Amino acid sequence: MTEELENQEVEETSPEADELEALRNENEELISTLQRLQADFENYRKRAQREQEALVARAGERIVKELLPVLDDLERALEAAEHHEETKLEDGVKLVHRQLEQLLEKEGLAPVETDGMFDPHVHEALLTQPSQAEEGSVIEVLQKGYRLGDRVLRPARVVVAGPKEEPGGDPL
Amino acid sequence: MTEELENQEVEETSPEADELEALRNENEELISTLQRLQADFENYRKRAQREQEALVARAGERIVKELLPVLDDLERALEAAEHHEETKLEDGVKLVHRQLEQLLEKEGLAPVETDGMFDPHVHEALLTQPSQAEEGSVIEVLQKGYRLGDRVLRPARVVVAGPKEEPGGDPL
Repeated sequence: MTEELENQEVEETSPEADELEALRNENEELISTLQRLQADFENYRKRAQREQEALVARAGERIVKELLPVLDDLERALEAAEHHEETKLEDGVKLVHRQLEQLLEKEGLAPVETDGMFDPHVHEALLTQPSQAEEGSVIEVLQKGYRLGDRVLRPARVVVAGPKEEPGGDPL
Repeated sequence: MTEELENQEVEETSPEADELEALRNENEELISTLQRLQADFENYRKRAQREQEALVARAGERIVKELLPVLDDLERALEAAEHHEETKLEDGVKLVHRQLEQLLEKEGLAPVETDGMFDPHVHEALLTQPSQAEEGSVIEVLQKGYRLGDRVLRPARVVVAGPKEEPGGDPL
């Protein structure tokens, strides 16, 4: 201890001067860390934005690319139509339909179920009709509905069964 | 000056003590600024990742949704085919083709030009044939090519003119 004190006296430093020096150094380091972090943040922000744009472009591009064979086969079907080759035209349309359906299925598209009761979450009732079917059940689909994953992309447009028609004197 | 010195003596402070105090405060502020920035950065990172996932999902969803009417009309065309209504089938296929073409055009799809000379950047030569056309020009398209913006999604598969056939004794 005595030695230390002596040394400090020799170097003409005080504990206060030491602390000052340490704090100044610490401050400088903090400032440069802060500046580096700010620069990193700014760079990250810019990169993230560029990446987002690229991702969206690529997501579209992938589906567009997968649609090219569908477009090709449609054009072949059109040629068959021009030459009045009905069987070829029919086969072509079936092929195109199957391709498009598979492509959309792969993207996660699924038809909305329409067997059973009307469900306002996935169905849109365009009409209610008296029917022998259970009241509130779907009796006709006017336009198919689709969901993509959890989301309903388009509700199914349906006709719903109204109160049962009682063909007078129906025994209970 | 004398007054200042006197005051400092009264408060038993020295210029060094003042600087120490100031540096300590500055240090504390720098540390809390740094911690806040780190937290902001981390939050931004997490949010950007979530947003990217949502963006990709939405980019696919948008195109899938636009394809639903195409699928509807294809199904109507199939029904016409089942009932052997050839005109209706033809009209349906034409409609579907136009719809799909417009949708893809809106996404930025454009056919690769095939008039003129063979261009290895956008064409794929499947065959070279002797021809009266200029050597190296595209004389037949076997499969249409497409570009999306600046990128070639699929090169056009073409037949290229070989050296000119000289029908012996052709005057210069």
